Amino acid sequence: MITLSSDFGSPYPAAMKAVIACMSDTRMVDVSHDFPRQDVRTTAFWLREILPYFPPAVHLVVVDPGVGTDRDALVVRAGEHALVGPDNGVLLPPARELAGGGTIEVFAVEQATDSETTLDPRAVAETWPPGAASSTFHGRDVFAPTATRVHELGVRNIEDEDAFTRKRGYEDFTLPQAEVGESVATGEILVIDDFGNAITNIPGEFVAQAFGSTVDVNGEPTSVERSYAHRSVGDRLLTVGSHGNVELAVNQGRGDEAFAVDVESAVTIRLDFE
Amino acid sequence: MITLSSDFGSPYPAAMKAVIACMSDTRMVDVSHDFPRQDVRTTAFWLREILPYFPPAVHLVVVDPGVGTDRDALVVRAGEHALVGPDNGVLLPPARELAGGGTIEVFAVEQATDSETTLDPRAVAETWPPGAASSTFHGRDVFAPTATRVHELGVRNIEDEDAFTRKRGYEDFTLPQAEVGESVATGEILVIDDFGNAITNIPGEFVAQAFGSTVDVNGEPTSVERSYAHRSVGDRLLTVGSHGNVELAVNQGRGDEAFAVDVESAVTIRLDFE
Amino acid sequence: MITLSSDFGSPYPAAMKAVIACMSDTRMVDVSHDFPRQDVRTTAFWLREILPYFPPAVHLVVVDPGVGTDRDALVVRAGEHALVGPDNGVLLPPARELAGGGTIEVFAVEQATDSETTLDPRAVAETWPPGAASSTFHGRDVFAPTATRVHELGVRNIEDEDAFTRKRGYEDFTLPQAEVGESVATGEILVIDDFGNAITNIPGEFVAQAFGSTVDVNGEPTSVERSYAHRSVGDRLLTVGSHGNVELAVNQGRGDEAFAVDVESAVTIRLDFE
Repeated sequence: MITLSSDFGSPYPAAMKAVIACMSDTRMVDVSHDFPRQDVRTTAFWLREILPYFPPAVHLVVVDPGVGTDRDALVVRAGEHALVGPDNGVLLPPARELAGGGTIEVFAVEQATDSETTLDPRAVAETWPPGAASSTFHGRDVFAPTATRVHELGVRNIEDEDAFTRKRGYEDFTLPQAEVGESVATGEILVIDDFGNAITNIPGEFVAQAFGSTVDVNGEPTSVERSYAHRSVGDRLLTVGSHGNVELAVNQGRGDEAFAVDVESAVTIRLDFE
Repeated sequence: MITLSSDFGSPYPAAMKAVIACMSDTRMVDVSHDFPRQDVRTTAFWLREILPYFPPAVHLVVVDPGVGTDRDALVVRAGEHALVGPDNGVLLPPARELAGGGTIEVFAVEQATDSETTLDPRAVAETWPPGAASSTFHGRDVFAPTATRVHELGVRNIEDEDAFTRKRGYEDFTLPQAEVGESVATGEILVIDDFGNAITNIPGEFVAQAFGSTVDVNGEPTSVERSYAHRSVGDRLLTVGSHGNVELAVNQGRGDEAFAVDVESAVTIRLDFE
Repeated sequence: MITLSSDFGSPYPAAMKAVIACMSDTRMVDVSHDFPRQDVRTTAFWLREILPYFPPAVHLVVVDPGVGTDRDALVVRAGEHALVGPDNGVLLPPARELAGGGTIEVFAVEQATDSETTLDPRAVAETWPPGAASSTFHGRDVFAPTATRVHELGVRNIEDEDAFTRKRGYEDFTLPQAEVGESVATGEILVIDDFGNAITNIPGEFVAQAFGSTVDVNGEPTSVERSYAHRSVGDRLLTVGSHGNVELAVNQGRGDEAFAVDVESAVTIRLDFE
């Protein structure tokens, strides 16, 4: 299986699927092509949360503000999974999660020189090593053929391919950590989901004993509830989302608006509300 | 085949597909993940219109304002199809249509207790009965594994599974019916589609003899046409949509704006316009 | 493989997939269902750019402002590919590209008369020749069954089907060509992509010697760069997009806004900028 993630919207992802389909019959599953444009942090968060639910697979990830520069194309092995994408840090948070505490291995992809490549669509799936036929769409020209190559080779056999060489000095990226004390936790909003739920980096365990009680969120009293529908429609609440993090929400409404927070806003929770 | 419908937008549906892919190689087809948020009525309408075109399948439906409450998870057998989703009525209109006049059978899904479940992604597809590992994303934790279980078991064999028990007092839901007389029909707008066509609950048969003539729609003279292009670009018209209902439309424009209607707006059509 | 393209948004494409799934197990790949409404020109551009990356396939294309009129349904053979859609020109630019200089062959699809068809969902996939059961959704009732029929028959065997007859007087459509001189090129914006890149009809070869230098775009000095990231974030630039055309862009921003252009805006590029 190959999963596909990008910030491409539509219709560019179809060109990646076309190239993959030329090279393999494997199942393709879209994770999302609506990740915020060039937003490595948000994409890394979602992939860290979602990819571990997949069976062993190759995960193609193209959020690539540096396309056309000399940043490398990477293959990252993490347990039975592999990730393929640009060297900008986006692959690392999901890779660490997929490795489940094991090591991750990073490979750079050798690319054909300009003189060896053309914009002929019929050549893309047949060119190896992949060539940056265009300087603006490596998803189609480099990452899709690379992901398919890894899939066909098998995640265990990445080192059998001459075009993949181990790389040390890759870009790393870590999502910010919350500071969690006994009764106070300070963190920030990592992402806002499509429902308007504001997902923090504060672990759900921090409020594990507080369900049904009231805590202080950025100075405002807020109920801690197991799910949205435990409050009336339109009421604000704090819950533990499906990713295991504390989430600021409104039952059938938008938590980001009710709590006046955006991505990167600071969040302080005090359990000893009185 | 498993079809997927939700109001999740992106990227949450990918987590459901991931869980299904852990348990089965079956084909997955998205119906839509852009149903209006928590809107049981609109979702039920579209599923009633679209699901009957599918071959026998298991239909996973997650529009679930009551997630995390004690509302049941349901499996509904309707002819050779099954529907899996929350007990809020959304499954019933499509189930009746899929049953084609036959009986529908409703089962509740036994769920693992909190103490038996964890948020470990690797455990979700292996936990049975399904556990509400999170209280906010039963699509991933309960409905996706249940739909896959039904698929693998076979729609005929639902009662072979101990975790599925027949249920009587489920939530029912019926889309509102129009009042149709000989020359006057009174109904309402059920949904507005992406084109802006305002779909009523008035059956197309009511205007079957009126094609090419003018009728009175909420007091305004309106042409009845077989399709949009029978009027000039920008002109309003009444037609019979692909669902068999009367639809208020504009050729290459938005019917909802031209007729000043929204979902639930009243619509009265008089054939004897003069 | 059957690819699907339309301007339907959601959830209408699911009904087409349902009909196809009743008739075939073949892989379905979405190109896009978000093409601008009734926009033959933009759809033709994208399909011309993207479809050639696919392996041999049947391409279902439904952008159909004339639905319900007497315009024909077409099957177009182009090399090892076939396209199925309405007779409004949208199929021709991608067909010529897929034929790669070879001939294209156009067939009209005989349709069942109204009296032979019903709105019964179970009948659509079993009705042949396809019937316009509805007058507003031929994607579901005519084009999806036709595309599947072509797929099952094989692209080489289109003439074996009695319902397909060769057609001469079909609607043709050609995307506008730029005028390219030695130092001046005059063209127009063909489409704006989701990133805001304004894609012209001026071939990339025109600026092949100008990378790293400054040219005059509609009177304003503009850098020619191999990719977006060669300029600072927010800076405007001219590049050659993945389709091989000159593109007006902004690094991590919207080119259409920075250059104040929209679809069909005139673009003049002078290489001899001083």
